[in-house]
Amino acid sequence: MKAKINEPPNDAQVRDRFDAWAQAVRAKDVEGVMANYAAEALLFDLAPPLQYQGAEACRRNWAEWFQTFKGPVGYEISKLQITASDTLAFCHSLNHIYGARTDGEETDVWVRATIGLRKLNGKWLITHEHYSVPFYMEPPYRASLDLKP
Amino acid sequence: MKAKINEPPNDAQVRDRFDAWAQAVRAKDVEGVMANYAAEALLFDLAPPLQYQGAEACRRNWAEWFQTFKGPVGYEISKLQITASDTLAFCHSLNHIYGARTDGEETDVWVRATIGLRKLNGKWLITHEHYSVPFYMEPPYRASLDLKP
Repeated sequence: MKAKINEPPNDAQVRDRFDAWAQAVRAKDVEGVMANYAAEALLFDLAPPLQYQGAEACRRNWAEWFQTFKGPVGYEISKLQITASDTLAFCHSLNHIYGARTDGEETDVWVRATIGLRKLNGKWLITHEHYSVPFYMEPPYRASLDLKP
Repeated sequence: MKAKINEPPNDAQVRDRFDAWAQAVRAKDVEGVMANYAAEALLFDLAPPLQYQGAEACRRNWAEWFQTFKGPVGYEISKLQITASDTLAFCHSLNHIYGARTDGEETDVWVRATIGLRKLNGKWLITHEHYSVPFYMEPPYRASLDLKP
């Protein structure tokens, strides 16, 4: 992502938060990732269950996911749109995830991301995340893992 | 959904907006549904493509989807959580969709919903929607259509 010229201060702060978050994801740095979450964070992730409730559940989920990558995680946030007030923000983007997995597979997928944040004690923190791919509407209802923006 | 006692005014207004929206969905009332959207609305839906850009694309999508139901659409919003300021809000919920389809199938599925809204000229309007189910992480990567909250 590139910083935008003359971006409103709240938008710029949220964009910085995403930069820090994505850098930690690429480095498989669980603590660095979790520094961006509020305690009450609720996650709708790519894999079941329907939801993960609370930062601890998110932490376990990130740690397990990082272990499925052989080396660094390829992670790029694209088409990020930020809607922010002084106290909360929501954002959506298309995120590119790629890299070699420990099971021998090569991941290369685009996912939709919607993130909600609150400014708590002067710091923007993620309270909600929603990641997904759509699925094909005929049996066997496969996830649409081959779509590109 | 039930109104909450002593709910903050913005939260109550957003909840009312969802009530009106869901009532229009159940009635397959395209205009009633679309009255809740901003012109720039961007949708991440259950089916491909990755995104629908603009209210007109959302309108066509709703109209086509409504036609796949024999009778009324079963639609209930559950576990709605609202985070609102004076100018914007984001919300997440688990939504139950059910009913007889024109292809003979009986739909009964729970989906995750994340919605972003802005208060524009005194009225809350949806600018972003994200609907999804997770998918099972082994081939053939089926959508997880059997999950319940």
